[in-house]
Amino acid sequence: MSTPSLSNRHYILKARPEGPPDRSHFELREAPVREPGDGEVLVRTRYLSVDPTNRIWMSDMKQYMPPVNQGEVMRALGVGVVERSRHPDYGAGDLVSGLLGWQDYNVAAPGDLALTRLPALDVPLGAFLCPLHVTGGFTAYVGLFDIAQPRPGETIVVSGAAGSVGSLVGQMGKIAGCRVVGIAGSDAGCRYVTEELGFDACINYRTEDVAAALDRACPQGVDIDFENAGGDILDTVLDKMNLFGRVTICGLISTYNDKQPRPGPVRFPLILMQRLRVQGFVITDHQARFPEAFEKIHGWIKEGRIKWRERVVEGLENAPDALGMLFQPNKIGKLLIKVSE
Amino acid sequence: MSTPSLSNRHYILKARPEGPPDRSHFELREAPVREPGDGEVLVRTRYLSVDPTNRIWMSDMKQYMPPVNQGEVMRALGVGVVERSRHPDYGAGDLVSGLLGWQDYNVAAPGDLALTRLPALDVPLGAFLCPLHVTGGFTAYVGLFDIAQPRPGETIVVSGAAGSVGSLVGQMGKIAGCRVVGIAGSDAGCRYVTEELGFDACINYRTEDVAAALDRACPQGVDIDFENAGGDILDTVLDKMNLFGRVTICGLISTYNDKQPRPGPVRFPLILMQRLRVQGFVITDHQARFPEAFEKIHGWIKEGRIKWRERVVEGLENAPDALGMLFQPNKIGKLLIKVSE
Repeated sequence: MSTPSLSNRHYILKARPEGPPDRSHFELREAPVREPGDGEVLVRTRYLSVDPTNRIWMSDMKQYMPPVNQGEVMRALGVGVVERSRHPDYGAGDLVSGLLGWQDYNVAAPGDLALTRLPALDVPLGAFLCPLHVTGGFTAYVGLFDIAQPRPGETIVVSGAAGSVGSLVGQMGKIAGCRVVGIAGSDAGCRYVTEELGFDACINYRTEDVAAALDRACPQGVDIDFENAGGDILDTVLDKMNLFGRVTICGLISTYNDKQPRPGPVRFPLILMQRLRVQGFVITDHQARFPEAFEKIHGWIKEGRIKWRERVVEGLENAPDALGMLFQPNKIGKLLIKVSE
Repeated sequence: MSTPSLSNRHYILKARPEGPPDRSHFELREAPVREPGDGEVLVRTRYLSVDPTNRIWMSDMKQYMPPVNQGEVMRALGVGVVERSRHPDYGAGDLVSGLLGWQDYNVAAPGDLALTRLPALDVPLGAFLCPLHVTGGFTAYVGLFDIAQPRPGETIVVSGAAGSVGSLVGQMGKIAGCRVVGIAGSDAGCRYVTEELGFDACINYRTEDVAAALDRACPQGVDIDFENAGGDILDTVLDKMNLFGRVTICGLISTYNDKQPRPGPVRFPLILMQRLRVQGFVITDHQARFPEAFEKIHGWIKEGRIKWRERVVEGLENAPDALGMLFQPNKIGKLLIKVSE
């Protein structure tokens, strides 16, 4: 039975991009919303999270989840509100997060959306897609504390410093007693992380000689590289790694639009010579750590030690453009799509 | 005061090689042996160990010890006998191992040679340069059990399988209850590790399609890559790594003669997608583990569970040729130089 009063706009993946994603790879469709069946909920999307991993899902490269198939709704994390519920654990008005996708509405069993009810906290709703979710804070927390394992006095370099994860990694690195050096793609991004977030230094990789700038910013060398970028930046940082350094590979955004696989870092042998530990991680493997991450980060937010910014694109119809913005070098803060009030 | 009866032949590093090392990079000199001073010992070299790391020391690349400088005696590990001692912990006739270098004699404080007295065991002397030393067994033991951390039922791929470290890694992998697949450069090497050492399979990288052969030999994928080779072999194995696999970088011998740094593996992004842990290690960092490694390996030798082969080049004067042999693909067993009886 459909619900004539509600119509669901949804973007399907029309074609896999080779190179940067744009509108041509998606098609906006519309369909009536059906009534939830037994055990199902109807969720209205409020915000969608725009993440580098969205680009991975669009490709058929070897990846950590099944890719989105052509003809399927584009996958995305989001927050929304339960409009109707025929599931005992959810009621109308509940705020939730989950894999809502690029669409106005979902009608599904909560498990199929990886749905989580949001606690009532005095934080803006967008916080649940940035510091208090996998798309920001949880990834920073697990990647830094569990994978990279910083010790006080060490030097952390973080690429994508002004972005959702990078900006939080840097602030957590300061909380851990480390020197934190960001790498970002704009002077505004560098100012943001040094002046507002407390990073010790930040390098604009588009205007500076990154190797020379790292030498200046990291007089004791680099103990931890929290890698969001990959490519030449990673290669340059590798050259500065101290003995027993850790390279935590959270993302390789500079490579996601490559049409052909590119060679790995020329300095790969330094992994041996400097006894580095290079470790990739994907936050969905670490769900057991989410409660602790949530509690810690919420505490730091209340104490004013963790800050973040949102950059909101209005309207589901603009989702493809929002995704494209993610690959611009001047991005600052967490990119969100506002789908409804 | 010199000892006119003893003359010390010694090879100095004359020129840093670009490409494979040969005689032109060394010069054989001779000098009288001086009397040991207070706190010093006079050690006669019996065997020298020929190791890929010797080639690293000849270059000025960033490395884990200072390189050998031009004009200095070529560095090498060896076993020898104390001929005279003015050190309270050593007496004439003691068998020792240490950084003896490419020479007939050393006169030095024991600490300057990193000297260790060899225990009296019923094993051939060469054992102390292979299963019972850093140049073989200790490296295999620490690299496998501490760094790679195998679990029973996992699949281990080891390159340089017929060599000193690789052949021991494979046997220890079997002891750990794993499936072990070697990669070697000759059919004879492959037969050696499968028929004599108990590897489950071995791939000749010079005659087989390594990717297809890995698919056949590793039906459950690869959990541990114990990497001695690097280059294309590493890149091919990366493509077969299971989720949460470990790549233990013990050596990258295929790259040591490169005149220009070569790009890293094309499949570097799989470190992220498969959540791999890629870790370099150098055995000299792990001295605290040597007693346990020694005890375990000696026990396995006595039980017949660990075997090895020596390939002995006679005469110090042939040391440069012996080093060259290390870079031939058909090497089997531990390469030693016999310097004196």
